[in-house]
Amino acid sequence: MAYKDEKLHEEKVFKDPVHRYVHVRDRVIWDLIGTKEFQRLRRIKQLGTSFLTFHGAEHSRFNHSLGVYEIVRRILINFEDRPNWNHEERLLCLCAALLHDLGHGPFSHSFEKVFKLDHEDFTRAIILGDTEVNQVLTNISIEFPQKVADVINKTYHDKLVVSLISSQIDADRMDYLQRDAYFTGVSYGHFDMERILRVMRPVEDQVVIKESGMHAVEDYIMSRYQMYWQVYFHPVTRSAEVILTKILHRVKALYDGGYTFKVEPTPFVSFFKEEVSLEDYIKLDEAVVLYYFQMWSEEDDPILSDLAYRFINRRLFKYAEFNPNLQMNEWMELYQLFRDIDLDPDYYLVVDSSSDLPYDFYRPGEEEERLPIHLLMPNKELRELSRQSDIVEAISGKKRTDHKLYYPKDLIEKLPEDRPEKQQIKKILHKQES
Amino acid sequence: MAYKDEKLHEEKVFKDPVHRYVHVRDRVIWDLIGTKEFQRLRRIKQLGTSFLTFHGAEHSRFNHSLGVYEIVRRILINFEDRPNWNHEERLLCLCAALLHDLGHGPFSHSFEKVFKLDHEDFTRAIILGDTEVNQVLTNISIEFPQKVADVINKTYHDKLVVSLISSQIDADRMDYLQRDAYFTGVSYGHFDMERILRVMRPVEDQVVIKESGMHAVEDYIMSRYQMYWQVYFHPVTRSAEVILTKILHRVKALYDGGYTFKVEPTPFVSFFKEEVSLEDYIKLDEAVVLYYFQMWSEEDDPILSDLAYRFINRRLFKYAEFNPNLQMNEWMELYQLFRDIDLDPDYYLVVDSSSDLPYDFYRPGEEEERLPIHLLMPNKELRELSRQSDIVEAISGKKRTDHKLYYPKDLIEKLPEDRPEKQQIKKILHKQES
Amino acid sequence: MAYKDEKLHEEKVFKDPVHRYVHVRDRVIWDLIGTKEFQRLRRIKQLGTSFLTFHGAEHSRFNHSLGVYEIVRRILINFEDRPNWNHEERLLCLCAALLHDLGHGPFSHSFEKVFKLDHEDFTRAIILGDTEVNQVLTNISIEFPQKVADVINKTYHDKLVVSLISSQIDADRMDYLQRDAYFTGVSYGHFDMERILRVMRPVEDQVVIKESGMHAVEDYIMSRYQMYWQVYFHPVTRSAEVILTKILHRVKALYDGGYTFKVEPTPFVSFFKEEVSLEDYIKLDEAVVLYYFQMWSEEDDPILSDLAYRFINRRLFKYAEFNPNLQMNEWMELYQLFRDIDLDPDYYLVVDSSSDLPYDFYRPGEEEERLPIHLLMPNKELRELSRQSDIVEAISGKKRTDHKLYYPKDLIEKLPEDRPEKQQIKKILHKQES
Amino acid sequence: MAYKDEKLHEEKVFKDPVHRYVHVRDRVIWDLIGTKEFQRLRRIKQLGTSFLTFHGAEHSRFNHSLGVYEIVRRILINFEDRPNWNHEERLLCLCAALLHDLGHGPFSHSFEKVFKLDHEDFTRAIILGDTEVNQVLTNISIEFPQKVADVINKTYHDKLVVSLISSQIDADRMDYLQRDAYFTGVSYGHFDMERILRVMRPVEDQVVIKESGMHAVEDYIMSRYQMYWQVYFHPVTRSAEVILTKILHRVKALYDGGYTFKVEPTPFVSFFKEEVSLEDYIKLDEAVVLYYFQMWSEEDDPILSDLAYRFINRRLFKYAEFNPNLQMNEWMELYQLFRDIDLDPDYYLVVDSSSDLPYDFYRPGEEEERLPIHLLMPNKELRELSRQSDIVEAISGKKRTDHKLYYPKDLIEKLPEDRPEKQQIKKILHKQES
Repeated sequence: MAYKDEKLHEEKVFKDPVHRYVHVRDRVIWDLIGTKEFQRLRRIKQLGTSFLTFHGAEHSRFNHSLGVYEIVRRILINFEDRPNWNHEERLLCLCAALLHDLGHGPFSHSFEKVFKLDHEDFTRAIILGDTEVNQVLTNISIEFPQKVADVINKTYHDKLVVSLISSQIDADRMDYLQRDAYFTGVSYGHFDMERILRVMRPVEDQVVIKESGMHAVEDYIMSRYQMYWQVYFHPVTRSAEVILTKILHRVKALYDGGYTFKVEPTPFVSFFKEEVSLEDYIKLDEAVVLYYFQMWSEEDDPILSDLAYRFINRRLFKYAEFNPNLQMNEWMELYQLFRDIDLDPDYYLVVDSSSDLPYDFYRPGEEEERLPIHLLMPNKELRELSRQSDIVEAISGKKRTDHKLYYPKDLIEKLPEDRPEKQQIKKILHKQES
Repeated sequence: MAYKDEKLHEEKVFKDPVHRYVHVRDRVIWDLIGTKEFQRLRRIKQLGTSFLTFHGAEHSRFNHSLGVYEIVRRILINFEDRPNWNHEERLLCLCAALLHDLGHGPFSHSFEKVFKLDHEDFTRAIILGDTEVNQVLTNISIEFPQKVADVINKTYHDKLVVSLISSQIDADRMDYLQRDAYFTGVSYGHFDMERILRVMRPVEDQVVIKESGMHAVEDYIMSRYQMYWQVYFHPVTRSAEVILTKILHRVKALYDGGYTFKVEPTPFVSFFKEEVSLEDYIKLDEAVVLYYFQMWSEEDDPILSDLAYRFINRRLFKYAEFNPNLQMNEWMELYQLFRDIDLDPDYYLVVDSSSDLPYDFYRPGEEEERLPIHLLMPNKELRELSRQSDIVEAISGKKRTDHKLYYPKDLIEKLPEDRPEKQQIKKILHKQES
Repeated sequence: MAYKDEKLHEEKVFKDPVHRYVHVRDRVIWDLIGTKEFQRLRRIKQLGTSFLTFHGAEHSRFNHSLGVYEIVRRILINFEDRPNWNHEERLLCLCAALLHDLGHGPFSHSFEKVFKLDHEDFTRAIILGDTEVNQVLTNISIEFPQKVADVINKTYHDKLVVSLISSQIDADRMDYLQRDAYFTGVSYGHFDMERILRVMRPVEDQVVIKESGMHAVEDYIMSRYQMYWQVYFHPVTRSAEVILTKILHRVKALYDGGYTFKVEPTPFVSFFKEEVSLEDYIKLDEAVVLYYFQMWSEEDDPILSDLAYRFINRRLFKYAEFNPNLQMNEWMELYQLFRDIDLDPDYYLVVDSSSDLPYDFYRPGEEEERLPIHLLMPNKELRELSRQSDIVEAISGKKRTDHKLYYPKDLIEKLPEDRPEKQQIKKILHKQES
Repeated sequence: MAYKDEKLHEEKVFKDPVHRYVHVRDRVIWDLIGTKEFQRLRRIKQLGTSFLTFHGAEHSRFNHSLGVYEIVRRILINFEDRPNWNHEERLLCLCAALLHDLGHGPFSHSFEKVFKLDHEDFTRAIILGDTEVNQVLTNISIEFPQKVADVINKTYHDKLVVSLISSQIDADRMDYLQRDAYFTGVSYGHFDMERILRVMRPVEDQVVIKESGMHAVEDYIMSRYQMYWQVYFHPVTRSAEVILTKILHRVKALYDGGYTFKVEPTPFVSFFKEEVSLEDYIKLDEAVVLYYFQMWSEEDDPILSDLAYRFINRRLFKYAEFNPNLQMNEWMELYQLFRDIDLDPDYYLVVDSSSDLPYDFYRPGEEEERLPIHLLMPNKELRELSRQSDIVEAISGKKRTDHKLYYPKDLIEKLPEDRPEKQQIKKILHKQES
C-alpha cells in the first residue's frame, strides 16, 4: 500500500474544546503532527500579547492548526462527488490546512516588522527544506511538498483548494474566530459553523454558499467584525505589542552599536544581521524570547531594561486617542517635551494604528485580494453576498482605522509637580484620554 | 481613608471564560494582581505536562488564582450576617484565595520531588519576605501578611476562613475542576456551582451545605472523581512527567559529578545545591526551564540530550500496566535486560503510581486530614455527607491506585530483530501493554 | 410590617434554563405568580404557531414573564443610588415586568386581528379589575394597581421606569431574544446580557449605556435582526398563522350566518359578537382553542373542517414570493382561477406581509415611537447610538418588508392534469416559488 | 425505485436544540413524521406534570421522538460493516426509534393507572391498525409494520435491533436525559454522547462499549441517577400527578354513580367503561384533557371542582415524609381525622411512592429485565460494566424508594384554631414535614 493511501490502524482523536474532537485517519496527517517543526507550534501563542488583556488567551498555534485541519476535513465530506476529485487532492487540502501557519514564530507581528521577515517565507522553507515535515510529505510523492507550499502560497492551479484556507470564509478564519472567542471568553465569535459547512458547495473553482445559508454567513461576518475590534485590536494588547516591538528595536540598536550584553543574545544574532537561517528561526520559540526578556530586564541599558521589565511584569503604557490628521502639532510638541524630560520619544511616545475591512467584494489590485463570497441562488445563478444581504451591503468596503498614542503614564506621574513639562504633557494628553 | 477600606474608583473586571467575569473592587486585590510575583504566575502552566495530552490545557496558574478569588468573593456575599465578621476578615479571605498558589514554580510536582522543595514554603516566603506582595499586604496592617500566610498554612484560628480555600469542597477545587474541564474540553468537571454557593452556610467554624443542595454536591464529587482519572492521572501526561523528572535527575547528577555544560545552568545551580533563595526561585519560570531544555537537547551527555529532546518534541515513553505485588520478578528481569542493551534503567524503566481518594470522612492522623462535608438538615442538625448520600457512601474511603511502567518503546523497536534481549523485553511487556 | 416591605421568610428560586435561576424575595411577587390569572400564562405559547416550524418552541408566556421580571430585578441592583428611588418604585418596576404580557391570549396576533381586540386592554383590565392579581397589588397600596397599569401603558410619569420594559433595549426584548433562541435552538439570539446590564446607567429619565458597552449593544441589535427574519417571520410559521386566522374568519362568518355547529362554540360567542367580557377572555386559553379546532375539523362546513384539520395535523399552505407592486395582475388572475376550481380565494389565496425596522432613532409621530438608545460618552455627554456605531448606522431606519402568497399546493396538485386551470395556476406560481 | 430505497430529493433538517440538527434522508421517515398520529405527539408533554415544577419543561413527545430517531441514525453509521446488515434492517431501526412512544397519551402514567391501560398496546395498535402510520409503513413491505411493532415490543428476533431503543444505554434514554435536562435547565443530565456513540460496537446480538469509553458510560449512569431524583421524582411534580390521578378517579366514580355533568364528558366515556377504541384514544390529547379540567372546575361536585381547580391553577398538595413500615398507625389516625373534618381521605390523603434502580446486571425473572451493559476489553473479551467500574459497582442493584404523604395543607390551615383535629393533624404531620 502506498503511503498516500495509508490509513491508521485505528482512528486517532484529539479532544478539542472548540470542535469537540479532531479526527485523524490518514497516516500522513498523524506523522506531520508528530514532527518537531509542528510540535514547535505548541511553544508559540496563537494571539501573541493578547493574554495580557484576556487572561484566558494562552492557547498556542498548535491548537489552532489542528482546528483548521478538522474544519477542512469536515468540509471535504461534502466534496466527494466533485469531478476529478481524488484522494491525493484531499490529502493536499488536509496537509495545507494543518501546515498553513507552520512558519509563524513567537510574536510574529513584531518580529516581522522589526527584522523585516515574512512568516510565509518560513512556512514555505520548512515545507520545502531539510525538515521532518518535508520528509513526511515526500512520502506521498516527490512533488507533494511543492504542491502544499503552492496551496498555502495561493498559487496552486485549483483555486478551490486554495480557497479552503484563504478566502473571506475559509477554515482558517472559521477556526480562529471560534477558538479565540472560546479562550478569551468573550461572547462574540459564535456563529453556526455546522450550518455553513452544510451549505458549502464546490462550484467550478470556488466554494459557494447556498442562498438558504445566507443568514449564517451574515452572522459569521458580524462575529468577525466584533472580534477584530473587541479582541484583536484591543488597546491593551496593542500596548503590550508596542513595548515588545520597542524592545526588539532597542536590542537591535544596541547590538548594531556594539553594546556588550551581560548574556550573549546568541539566538538573536542572525536576526539582528537580517540573515536568518531556517535552523535559527525554528529554534527561536516563545520560551527563548521570554528567557531573554528576563535577562534583558537586568541589563545596564536603562531603556532596554525598563522596557523588558515592563513586558515581563505587565507595566504597560497607557494610551490616548490620536487623530493624525488633526493632531500633528500636538504630537510634535509632545515629542519635544518628552526629550526635555529625558524620555526618548522614539521608545516612549508611540503611535499605533489598526484598521479592518469587515468584508469586501473583489477589487483587483488592492492589497488584500480575497475572493468575495458568492451565494448559490435557487435558480443556480451565483450572486455576490453584499448584493443579497442588506447587513453585509451596509458594512461592505467600509474600512475603519483607529489610531492611539501610547506612553508611560507612570513615568510622567512621577515627575515633580513643579516641572512645567509635566503639566504641559498632561494637558495635551488629557484631552484625548479615555 | 485607611488602605484597608479603600475601594477602587471604578470596579475593574476581568473577562473570564469560566466565571464570565472576575470582579475587583478592593484596592488591595487590584494592587496584588499587579505585583511581579503574581504576574509571574502567567508563566507557569496550571496543569504542568497535561498540555501534551490535552492540547487545550495551556492555561496558567494566573488564570486559576483569579478564579479562586472570584469564587470566594461570591461565597462571602452570603456571609455578611455572620457574627464578628468584619471587613478585614473579608479581605483576609480574598487575599488568601488570590495568593494560595503563589509559591508554585514550573512543573512543581517534579521539581519538588527532585530538589526536595515544598511550594507552600515559598508561598509563605513570598508573602512574608521582601516582595511587592508583602508590601501591598502590609498596607492593610503590619500583622496582615502573617494572617494571610496562616490561612494558607491552615493554622489560622478561624477554621471557617481556612476551609474556604482548603476543605473537601473549597473554592480551590471548585475552580480547578471547572477550569481544567473547560480548557481540556472534556465533558466531565461540570456541576452546579451556583447552586452550591447558594446553599453554603457558615455554622460555627465550618462551612456546611444545606441538605437541599446534597445532589449538587454529589455531582461535584463525581466530577472530581472523573477529572482525576480522566485528566489529572492520564497516562500520557504521566509519561511526560516521568521524562521531565528524569531530566532533572540527570542534570543534577551531571552537575554533582562535575560535568561541564555547554551553556552554564546558572538558574539551576542553587537548586542542585538544595540551597534555593527566594530570589532564585522566583526567577525560575517555565520559559527559563524550556529554554534550558532546548539547550540540553544539544548537550553531549546522551541521556540528558535524549530526554530533553523527547520532552521538547513530545517523543514520550510508552507504558504497560504494572502490578508491584505480582510483577516484581518481571521488573527485575527487565531491569537487567535494559542494562544489557545499554539503556540505563534508572532513566528508561520507570514505575509511576497515582492514587486518589474520592471522598473521605475525617480520620485523624491520616495523611490528608481534610474536613468532611457536613449537611445542614432541616431540623438544624449536622450530618456527615456519606451518611446521607448513597452515592457518596458507595465511594467513600475507597482509595484507588494505578501503577504503570514507562519505557522508550521506540528504542526497543530499533534494536536488531536478532538480539535476544529485544524479544525477551517485548514478551514481558506485551503481556501488560494496552 | 406593611405588605410592601414584606420579604419572604426564605428566598424562592425557579430553575430557569435561560437565566439559570429566577430569584424571588418580595412577597408581592410570590403572590402574583400564584394568582390564577398569572398561572393561565402557562397555557399560552410564547411564540404562537412557531412550534410548527421549530419543534422546540413550545415554551409558554409564563416562562418569558418570569424571565423579564428576573432581568429587571438584576438591572435594579445598579439603581440603588438613584435619587428619589425608593422601595415602592422598585416593586413597581418588578410588578410591571412580571405582568406586562398578562393580557395575552392564545395566538394573540390572529385573535386580535379577527376579533378587533388589543391584548394591552386586557392586561390593564386584569390589573384593574376584580381579579386575584388586582387584590395582591392592592395590598401594596390602593393606587398601586393603577401605577402598574400606567407603566405597562407607557403613560407613567417616570419614563425611566417605563423604559425598563419598553424601549429599544428593554428587559422584554432581552429576555425573548435569548429565550426564543434557546428553545428554538437557533444559534442567533445570543449577546452578552451580563455586560449590557453592567453598563446600564440611569440618567435623568432614561436608561443609557456606557460607551464602553457599545459593542455588546451592537451584538444585541444584530441578534434581534437575525431573530426576526430567521425565527419570528419564518415563512412556515406564517403559513400556520394564515390558516389559523382563516379558521377564525370562517367560524365567525358561519356564526354570523346562523350556521348550526355540532358542538356549541360557547367560549367563542362573545368574541363573535365583539363584546368580550374579562371573564370570557381569561377562560379562553390554548387548550380551549385546540379542543375546538379538533371539534371543528369534524364539522360539516368543508372550509372550516379543512382548515381546522390542516392546523391540527400540520398540513400547511405552501408559499410563493409576491411583489404587490408588480404582480397585482397575476394575483387577480389567480383569484379568478381559484374561483373557477371552487377554492374560495378569500380562504385559500392569502397574501401575508412582514416587516421589521431593526433600529431607529426617534421620529415623532411614527407608529412605533420607541426611544432611541443613548450612549454615555467618557466626557459624560449622551450620544445617540447610530451616530457612534458604524454597524447600527448602516442598518438604521432601513425598514424591510417581505410579502408572500400562501395557498394549498396539495389541492392544486390533486386536480386532474387536463384541467387547464391547474396548468395556468402552476405556471403563475412556479415563477415565484422557492 | 421501491419505496424502501427512496431517498428524498434533498435532505430535510429539523433544528433541534439538543442535537443541533435532525437529518432526514429516507422518504419513509419524512412521511411518518407527517402522519396525523405522529403530529399528535406535539399535543402531549414529554414530562407530564413536571412543567408545574420546572417551568421550562413544556416540551412535547414529538420533540423527544425526533431525538431518539436522530441518535439511532448516528449510531447506525458505525454499523455499516455488520454482517447481514441491509437497508431494510436500517429502516426498521429508524422507524422503531421514531415511533417507539407513538401510543403515549396525555399524562400517560395517571391515565394508565386509573383506566387500566397500557400505552404500549396503543403503540402497537397504531402501527398495525387502520392509520396513516400503518399505510406509510406498508409501503416498505407488507410485513414491515409487524416488524416495527415487534422491535418496540422487544420480541423481534435480532436483539441488537431491539437493544438500540430498549437497553440500559439505549437511544431513548440518551435522548430523554439530555433533552429533559435542557428544557428544565438543570445542570445534571449531561454526558459525552458523542464519545459513547463512537465506542459503541455491534457484537453478535448486542451493542457493547469499548472499554476506553467506560468513564463516559459511568457519567451517563450518574446523570440518569441524578435526573431521576432531581427531576422525574421531584415531590412537587408528584403532587400534581397525585391531584391529576384523583381527578380521574373522581370523575370515573361520578360517572359510574350516574352523576349528571354540566358538560357531557364525551371523549372520556369509553375510558370510564374501559372499552377504549383506537379512534377515541387518538383523539384524547392534552388540549382535550385541559379543556375538560377547566369545565370540571365549575362542576357542582365539590371534590371534582376543587381538584380540577387545583390542577389548573397550581394549588398543589403539600407533602410530608412517610415511612410505611413505621408510620401505619399515624396514617390510620390521620385517615380518621380527615374524615372527622369532612375531607375525604381517599382524595385528600395520598401516599405516593417512587423508586429507582440506577443500574442492574441481568437477573432473569425480575420485573425490568433490561440487558446489562458490556464492555469490550482490549483482549476482545466482554466484561459486565459493574465488574470493571468501581462507581457502578458501588450503586449497582441498590434500589432506592421514597414515600411521601400528600394532603391539602391550605384546607387544614383554614380550619378554626380551636378545632382539636386541626392541632392533632398538624402535630402528626409536622414531625415529617420538610
